[in-house]
Amino acid sequence: MKLYDNRRAPNPRRVRIFLAEKGMSVPTEEVDLGALAQKTETFSAINPFQRVPALVLDDGTIICESIAICRYIEGLQPEPILFGRDTLETARIEMWERRMEHYLFAPIAQAFRHLHPAMKSMEVPQVPAWGEANKARGLKALALVDRELASRPFIAGDTFSVADITALVAVDWMKPARLSIPDELVHLQRWHAEISARPSAAA
Amino acid sequence: MKLYDNRRAPNPRRVRIFLAEKGMSVPTEEVDLGALAQKTETFSAINPFQRVPALVLDDGTIICESIAICRYIEGLQPEPILFGRDTLETARIEMWERRMEHYLFAPIAQAFRHLHPAMKSMEVPQVPAWGEANKARGLKALALVDRELASRPFIAGDTFSVADITALVAVDWMKPARLSIPDELVHLQRWHAEISARPSAAA
Repeated sequence: MKLYDNRRAPNPRRVRIFLAEKGMSVPTEEVDLGALAQKTETFSAINPFQRVPALVLDDGTIICESIAICRYIEGLQPEPILFGRDTLETARIEMWERRMEHYLFAPIAQAFRHLHPAMKSMEVPQVPAWGEANKARGLKALALVDRELASRPFIAGDTFSVADITALVAVDWMKPARLSIPDELVHLQRWHAEISARPSAAA
Repeated sequence: MKLYDNRRAPNPRRVRIFLAEKGMSVPTEEVDLGALAQKTETFSAINPFQRVPALVLDDGTIICESIAICRYIEGLQPEPILFGRDTLETARIEMWERRMEHYLFAPIAQAFRHLHPAMKSMEVPQVPAWGEANKARGLKALALVDRELASRPFIAGDTFSVADITALVAVDWMKPARLSIPDELVHLQRWHAEISARPSAAA
């Protein structure tokens, strides 16, 4: 297997953290997003949608989309289970993983992509009004997550799951997006400190 | 079980089509999005993120997010399998389901929400420049999907899957978003006619 990766982009980090939680290591190849290497003919043959990460299996099969890659890895190496043990737990984890994507990760992404000068060549056209609208959305989601974390240790329940990975990568992306966790969100702060202390967070 | 639904919104339709493909029927309660019923205290207690659909189980457990609901239903009623039979097929279907969400459904949603006058009270603030940017993205994704459908019957392979449901709902949403399938995309036209002819498409 080989993972097409980028050390600074948030999506590939989700897969690297997932692999680290599984105790797995996969060879990587860095895709230089700054040089728009994802838009070359070579990389477009790997992923016509021109995004990282992409996982290439030994037989040449290609899997794209971070969570599809993670779910494939879960199939190869089930323990520790990060997508849920039974039908109901799987649904609850997917609900929270998607909430973290749609209401936290996506607004932070949009704020970053539409406001940061470094994204001018990648996000065409940048629409600053849209970036600004998303700052408020990201902060609203943080407050909702804080309320949930008042009564449980992890995003989706009593155990660490893929939803914590998406949320961690989103929260860590707030810094380049020029946002920060408000001081009063103490449960979110507690959760962030605990998840950041896991060895996988360095991935 | 009860499904909080809305007959005009695209996300609940994904769940209704999924249920129809499974031969299942679930009682529904209409949430009046036009009257902003999703933002009331009553509905916020069901889904603090204020979105439909939401599935309430008989014991009161609530599952939100369309695909989390669909995956739960697949657990209850595995046949016909719509999320994949084994690890690799499951990954391939999830890759395509997410591609249809991120590169087709989302741009069409953004074009609709930021340009349609009827969305003024729901999408605050509307950012027309962002709506326009997404029209081009949606059309680009359609062309990529057309190329894929030249060599296989369904979005993710040889069998109908949840990826076809997301793609159908996205394509049918193009009309209110004032977009249409370009005439030259004959493979996409063929696929759309076939999927629209399935009884589930009326759901």
